[in-house]
Amino acid sequence: MGEYRLICTDCGRAFGRDEVEYVCPECARTQRPGECLRGVLRAEYAIPRDGLRRFPREGPAGAARFIDLLPIDDPALLPPLPVGPSPLLSVPRLREALDTPRVFVKDDTVLPSGSLKDRASSLVVAKAREKGAGVVTTASTGNAATALAAMAAAAGIECVLFVPAEAPRAKLAQMLAFGARVLRVTGSYDDAYALCLEASLHFGWYNRSTAYNPYTIEGKKTVALEIWEQLGREAPDAVVVPVGDGVILAAVAKGFDDLRAAKLVDRVPRLVAVQAEGSAAIVDACEQGAATVTPLARATTIADSIRVAVPACGTWALRALRETKGRGVRVSDDAILAAIAELGRLAGVFAEPAAAASLAGLHGALASGAVSPDARVVLLVSGSGLKDIDAGLRAVAVPEPIPPTLDAVRRAIGA
Amino acid sequence: MGEYRLICTDCGRAFGRDEVEYVCPECARTQRPGECLRGVLRAEYAIPRDGLRRFPREGPAGAARFIDLLPIDDPALLPPLPVGPSPLLSVPRLREALDTPRVFVKDDTVLPSGSLKDRASSLVVAKAREKGAGVVTTASTGNAATALAAMAAAAGIECVLFVPAEAPRAKLAQMLAFGARVLRVTGSYDDAYALCLEASLHFGWYNRSTAYNPYTIEGKKTVALEIWEQLGREAPDAVVVPVGDGVILAAVAKGFDDLRAAKLVDRVPRLVAVQAEGSAAIVDACEQGAATVTPLARATTIADSIRVAVPACGTWALRALRETKGRGVRVSDDAILAAIAELGRLAGVFAEPAAAASLAGLHGALASGAVSPDARVVLLVSGSGLKDIDAGLRAVAVPEPIPPTLDAVRRAIGA
Repeated sequence: MGEYRLICTDCGRAFGRDEVEYVCPECARTQRPGECLRGVLRAEYAIPRDGLRRFPREGPAGAARFIDLLPIDDPALLPPLPVGPSPLLSVPRLREALDTPRVFVKDDTVLPSGSLKDRASSLVVAKAREKGAGVVTTASTGNAATALAAMAAAAGIECVLFVPAEAPRAKLAQMLAFGARVLRVTGSYDDAYALCLEASLHFGWYNRSTAYNPYTIEGKKTVALEIWEQLGREAPDAVVVPVGDGVILAAVAKGFDDLRAAKLVDRVPRLVAVQAEGSAAIVDACEQGAATVTPLARATTIADSIRVAVPACGTWALRALRETKGRGVRVSDDAILAAIAELGRLAGVFAEPAAAASLAGLHGALASGAVSPDARVVLLVSGSGLKDIDAGLRAVAVPEPIPPTLDAVRRAIGA
Repeated sequence: MGEYRLICTDCGRAFGRDEVEYVCPECARTQRPGECLRGVLRAEYAIPRDGLRRFPREGPAGAARFIDLLPIDDPALLPPLPVGPSPLLSVPRLREALDTPRVFVKDDTVLPSGSLKDRASSLVVAKAREKGAGVVTTASTGNAATALAAMAAAAGIECVLFVPAEAPRAKLAQMLAFGARVLRVTGSYDDAYALCLEASLHFGWYNRSTAYNPYTIEGKKTVALEIWEQLGREAPDAVVVPVGDGVILAAVAKGFDDLRAAKLVDRVPRLVAVQAEGSAAIVDACEQGAATVTPLARATTIADSIRVAVPACGTWALRALRETKGRGVRVSDDAILAAIAELGRLAGVFAEPAAAASLAGLHGALASGAVSPDARVVLLVSGSGLKDIDAGLRAVAVPEPIPPTLDAVRRAIGA
């Protein structure tokens, strides 16, 4: 419903909504292999001079209530699998343990396919329907693909997915159950990404690949809109975000920026970008004060959802960090595993490694003073631990079986 | 907030709320090993003569809104991990495929720990806090234990779980991540159940074991209250329920019974009980017109959550079927696997085998005329497919890897 233009985040050119599909064509021409994506587009809404009134709209749960800040005209285009609001959890035991009395957990593990990626996929499928596309496609290491498959299934659009042949089993089971055509591409995620792009151009499929499709950011920003509403129409002081390709970080900033443009909030929160230490291109650039992100030769971490050597949305994410006086935090795989157990034990939330990274990062941010213990801070928990059982089991001690006797119980519990 | 008594579903004796803890002591004395649980208690609320007004209450999402029909005085006792409402999905593609235009999916896969069992565990933890219990315990094949662990973690109550040593890996990872003490008992679920009972009496732990603790049924009935509210304060014509020990079936009936007693609905829906053909004690009894359920020597099915030889809540479930003019349906494991794929492909919902059984059962109920294609019918989908990846992968064809070339894509999609 929102009238909007698309602005190139690199060169600043403005395009009408139907003038351009994915990235700025001028900047795309200068794209070199192995660097961050050039020409990522940013939707800019026409806001009445006195701001948006009656936002969000009344209505049942789901993104449709935010239609005034979404790039579709008809909320009925959204798939019949509503996304959000996910809970913003008060977490008394975690607050006590961290001595941070105003920390919240934004629990996106309970979204339809179990990750924040549902937010982007729902909107992209709506856009595909608006455009009359018969097939949607994406490259993904896992969560984006399962989310797209779920939304396409609900909406009745064909879905072709390009994933590394070694994609995690749980995510593979989901996308296949959702009836997608899954192409398990021999090689890395980068190979799958390149092949998806080539195929989408060749066959005319609508491409959801993250950052390349500007509506992924518009969909993901609903997490910020929900946080704002759940905090009583206020921004928190800080949002802690697990970061791989940078799209979620950019999207959180975009959500609060749009609220500010709509005169619904007067400041944006400080963003804290958490990266695994083996996959920290964006944090590196932030600390070095660099203007652009230098991709890594190779990314390694247990957290597959944020294991990214070439962060597609790196430039925008870096700018978002700067503009919000944000900070980067690096966390080790051991710290991520410890955070899975801590979040489970103290909040009852089971997170996949990338999602638990935000708690690991909060420890770092509190220790360095990047986040004050008095701050109202939101931890983004972006995907379910059920998507990576192996990591979950590494985070805990699995007990040996006991015989069915009271004595054995007594020994086991140390009574 | 609801004032209530506890009535024995076998002998009809009434007890004050604090007079009795788990089952009717008189009937428990006649309990023989290997038969359905005797003396299961039913909460009966004191309802004003003109019914309940202003139900449910205003407030944030979660069971607290239903406090007038729940057996706790203070909604703040509920753990800070709100349960429900889960979505009642309109499913256009499934409707079309089934030629049943008014079918809905009640999607409990998105509850906090991924199953309907969260409803019972949340209320039982509230009850434990009310009673000042320091430890909660349960025996479980998996979902009830993970749900109890999550709720206990959020509330800060110690949790001891008795599960078969061979409990599914995903569920084991969840309960351990939630910080529970997990006792993996060598032997069957029945061995774990007996040991849990013995240990809870010995150590004074508060026992959540299903049906034995009457508040499991009170917690699970919130699924019926939500359906009623989501259908515009009306009952559907039928609810299709996967059935193992019979507690969920009894709870759905109880929810609508309570609404009728509160003058909020004038009829209860027909219940359709779906059991796996290797685990169909309740359906057997229903078809034979028997007064009680004869336990099986052994139960076999791929659907671990409804694999039950001795249905604890069999007697009550059988009565609920009779009183609602309900029907039983048996489904094969192959039909359950096909239903996983069908539900995923047509609704975007990934279910564990027990949860997909309701769709398999609807096919049977439509074929036999037990449910009319014009009926407003709700399919209860009780647990996430991420809890049983192996079954999910058996339900689909896993494609072979392809090389990263357009030709390979063309061959794979048959273009």
